[in-house]
Amino acid sequence: MFHKILATAAVCVLAAALAISISLRRPRVAMAASTAVPAYAKNGDLLPIANYREWTYLSSGFDPSSSPKDGQAQEHATFDNVFVNPAAYRSFLETGAWPDKTVIVLERREARNKGSICQNGHFQGKTVAGFEVQLKDEARFPGKWAFFTFDSPDSNGTLMPQGASCVSCHAAHGAVDSTYVQFDPTLLPVARKKGTLSEAFLKEESAAAAKK
Amino acid sequence: MFHKILATAAVCVLAAALAISISLRRPRVAMAASTAVPAYAKNGDLLPIANYREWTYLSSGFDPSSSPKDGQAQEHATFDNVFVNPAAYRSFLETGAWPDKTVIVLERREARNKGSICQNGHFQGKTVAGFEVQLKDEARFPGKWAFFTFDSPDSNGTLMPQGASCVSCHAAHGAVDSTYVQFDPTLLPVARKKGTLSEAFLKEESAAAAKK
Repeated sequence: MFHKILATAAVCVLAAALAISISLRRPRVAMAASTAVPAYAKNGDLLPIANYREWTYLSSGFDPSSSPKDGQAQEHATFDNVFVNPAAYRSFLETGAWPDKTVIVLERREARNKGSICQNGHFQGKTVAGFEVQLKDEARFPGKWAFFTFDSPDSNGTLMPQGASCVSCHAAHGAVDSTYVQFDPTLLPVARKKGTLSEAFLKEESAAAAKK
Repeated sequence: MFHKILATAAVCVLAAALAISISLRRPRVAMAASTAVPAYAKNGDLLPIANYREWTYLSSGFDPSSSPKDGQAQEHATFDNVFVNPAAYRSFLETGAWPDKTVIVLERREARNKGSICQNGHFQGKTVAGFEVQLKDEARFPGKWAFFTFDSPDSNGTLMPQGASCVSCHAAHGAVDSTYVQFDPTLLPVARKKGTLSEAFLKEESAAAAKK
């Protein structure tokens, strides 16, 4: 399932820090109850993230895939929209790295190709075809990062096992700390400037440049 | 140029209200100097919108067009990313309508089709190939709305004449108040519920449904 997450730059959110990100002058406790993330159910599921559509947008992919295949748009094409909690985004702009409690949301939304005045190309429809979260919670997860998959944005998220392909692929190919910053156009230059790109990514990039 | 803006839901931003949207407890004057939008140069150009990437994301299109043509992805494909000032977004969620000083940003970004582990589909690159703003400033513009085109996100924006095709197309086909809410998946249901969809859009929608 996480094969397609690559269209996203990996990111995250600070639980209590969301309040801080919104206003330094607002008492930190003000938003803690309703917006603290990540928050878990007793069984370890991740609780829904109510306001992710108001988080910071990172990027979108159109039918991205790590598998070579027919390059034509699929019948059920999707957009991968990626959001991150604003506090983590601002932290990344300053440091080129993700703080603890970073939460990155991947919303896979149906692509439609005709409607209203749109005669060609694709726009986004109402159906959310997939919903996944990558988050950093250092005290909770041995590998710091964890991945959750959701039936819908309103459902609880199920923890993916540490041996899942998404986990190993992110760890091996993520440009910054297990996250796909290489697909986020505003963060990649920050990571390059701050020197936080992974060695593995820099090697892949050099190898790709040498082929050209 | 605005033919391709259709992949976007039309929206806007309240100048001083940006401060309000960020924190009700923050003194309104605190952010006025740096983030008040829209702000104009003496010659009437629109000043750059520094932090639009932290505004609320509305939607993206992939090579959307109002012209029927070859359906394959173009050699220089682009994503149309649309953002709106957070205060206007929240106002729309409550009312289904855009307040005065709404500012909608269209960022047209290059699509890349291979890179890192992405073997198929498209992701977004660093080049911003187009940048346009639609804004509502009732006291300044006779038609309430105005359109500005920019050489880059950092440049000043040039006002498009009221007779430009973008203006008439938005007015004729915009689902809500000259804006393309029909392409924004989170706002279209709000407008439908609040009864703010334009008569012209509802007619087009009925006609399209009758054809099926």
